[in-house]
Amino acid sequence: MAEKRPLILVTNDDGITAPGIRTLIEVMNELGDVFVVAPDSPQSGMGHAITVNDTLYVDRVTIDRSAPQTEFSCSGTPADCVKLAVNEILKRKPDLCVSGINHGSNSSINVIYSGTMSAAVEAGTQGIPSIGFSLLDYSLEADFKPVRKFVRQIASQCLENSMPHGVVLNVNFPKLPEEKIKGIKVCRQANAHWIENFDKRVNPLGREYYWLTGEFVNEDKGEDTDEWALKNGYVSVVPVQFDLTAHHAIKDINSWEL
Amino acid sequence: MAEKRPLILVTNDDGITAPGIRTLIEVMNELGDVFVVAPDSPQSGMGHAITVNDTLYVDRVTIDRSAPQTEFSCSGTPADCVKLAVNEILKRKPDLCVSGINHGSNSSINVIYSGTMSAAVEAGTQGIPSIGFSLLDYSLEADFKPVRKFVRQIASQCLENSMPHGVVLNVNFPKLPEEKIKGIKVCRQANAHWIENFDKRVNPLGREYYWLTGEFVNEDKGEDTDEWALKNGYVSVVPVQFDLTAHHAIKDINSWEL
Repeated sequence: MAEKRPLILVTNDDGITAPGIRTLIEVMNELGDVFVVAPDSPQSGMGHAITVNDTLYVDRVTIDRSAPQTEFSCSGTPADCVKLAVNEILKRKPDLCVSGINHGSNSSINVIYSGTMSAAVEAGTQGIPSIGFSLLDYSLEADFKPVRKFVRQIASQCLENSMPHGVVLNVNFPKLPEEKIKGIKVCRQANAHWIENFDKRVNPLGREYYWLTGEFVNEDKGEDTDEWALKNGYVSVVPVQFDLTAHHAIKDINSWEL
Repeated sequence: MAEKRPLILVTNDDGITAPGIRTLIEVMNELGDVFVVAPDSPQSGMGHAITVNDTLYVDRVTIDRSAPQTEFSCSGTPADCVKLAVNEILKRKPDLCVSGINHGSNSSINVIYSGTMSAAVEAGTQGIPSIGFSLLDYSLEADFKPVRKFVRQIASQCLENSMPHGVVLNVNFPKLPEEKIKGIKVCRQANAHWIENFDKRVNPLGREYYWLTGEFVNEDKGEDTDEWALKNGYVSVVPVQFDLTAHHAIKDINSWEL
C-alpha cells in the first residue's frame, strides 16, 4: 500500500525552521509522504519573486531526526523552492502542495504581497492542487495547535476532491483557541487596501531612511468576505486564480479610442 | 492652465537609468507633470515584493539636466517605489501611474512574476489609474522608438476615460518596426506556463548551484489572448484585476466536506 500514499510538497516563506512549517509538516506526515523544500531564511513580503539574476543553492537538511519527511533548504524565494522541487528534486509531480503555516495574515489584498501564497500559486500554474495556510498571529511564538485539525481537514478534502482548474486555496485562521473557532467558510477576497505611513529616521551617518509601516483599511461591508469570516471566528477559504484578466472590463476598454 | 496638467508617476523594475523608463519619461512629459520614483538598481523577477524587514533609502537625482521631470531613486522594490511616491513624496494623488517600459515580456502568466506590473497593481490598489508597459526585447539596446506613439495613445486614453474599478492595464509590445505593428488589441491573459530547466553547475569551492532557466509553454489556442495578438503583430492590452477570487469556484469548493 505504501505506493498509494500521496506525495506532498511542503514549503513556506518564513524559512524552513519556522514553527508554522514544522506544524504543517507534522500534520502532512499523517496524510502522505512529505518532501519539504523551503527557504533557508525568512522571505516575508517577497510576493511572487523569482531569482533570475543570482545563483540558487539547495541543501539536504535534517531538522528532526525522528521524523519521516525528506527536507531541503534553498537560498531562493518561495516560488523558487516550488520550481526547484517540481522540476529538479522530486521524481514525480506531487499530489498536493501546501505552503505555510504563515506567521501572519494573508487575507484580502495581502494575498498579492504574500510569499506563502506565491508558492501555492506557482504550484498551481504547474497543475498541482495547492493550498496556502496563514494564521493571524505574527509572533514567532504563535500557537498553531488550535488550527491543526482544520489544516488536516482542508488538505484531506483537497486530496479527495478535484481542485477546479486554475485555482489554488488561500486559507487564513483567526487567532483563537480551538473551541472558539466556529468552522470553515468559503469566501471572496475582501475589497481592502493599505494606507502606508512611512517611519522616517536618520542613520548614524546622518542619512535619512524609511521603514514601511501601514494601516489596513477594509471598506468592504460584505458578509461573504474573508475579513468578515475571520472577524467572526471562522476559518476563511478563498479560491484564488492566476488568470488575472478582468474579463468584465474588456468591453469597457474596447470602447476607448485604441 | 499649468495647474490643469495631469500629475503622472513613472516607475519601473529595470532601474531608473534603463532605456525603457527614459523613453517612458520622455513620452509622459508630453502629457503632464512627471514625477519619477524608481529603483536604484534592476529588480527583475521581483513580483509584488515589498521591503518589510529592511530600510528604504530615497535620493533626489538628476539624470537629464535638460528635462522637466522630478526624479527620485529608491533602494526598494517597484511596489515600494509606488508606496513611497504616493504616501510620502507626492503632494497629491497622481492622475496616472505608468510603469516600464520593461525590457522583456510581461504577457500571459509572466504577469505574476513581473515587478513592472506589481508597481502598476500597487498604484491600482490605491485607486490610481495605472498601466504597465513591456517590450518583447530583453536587450538593454532594445529599440523603443517604434512603440512611442502607442504608449502615448494608450496613456492619453487612460487619462481621458475612466479606468474600471479595481483594474489596471498590462500592455505588451511586439518587437517589430513601427510600420509592421498592426494596431492595438484588448485581450485576455493566455493560459500558459513555464517548464523550468535548472542549469546545475559547480562553484570554485566545489559546491553545486543552479541557474533558473525555463521554457515558456502556451497551450492556449485562443485568438483573443495576448500571446496571439503579440505573435500576430498587435500591441496587447490586458485589463488585470487584483481581486484574485475565483468567484466561479466558490460553489465547487462549497461542495467539499468543510
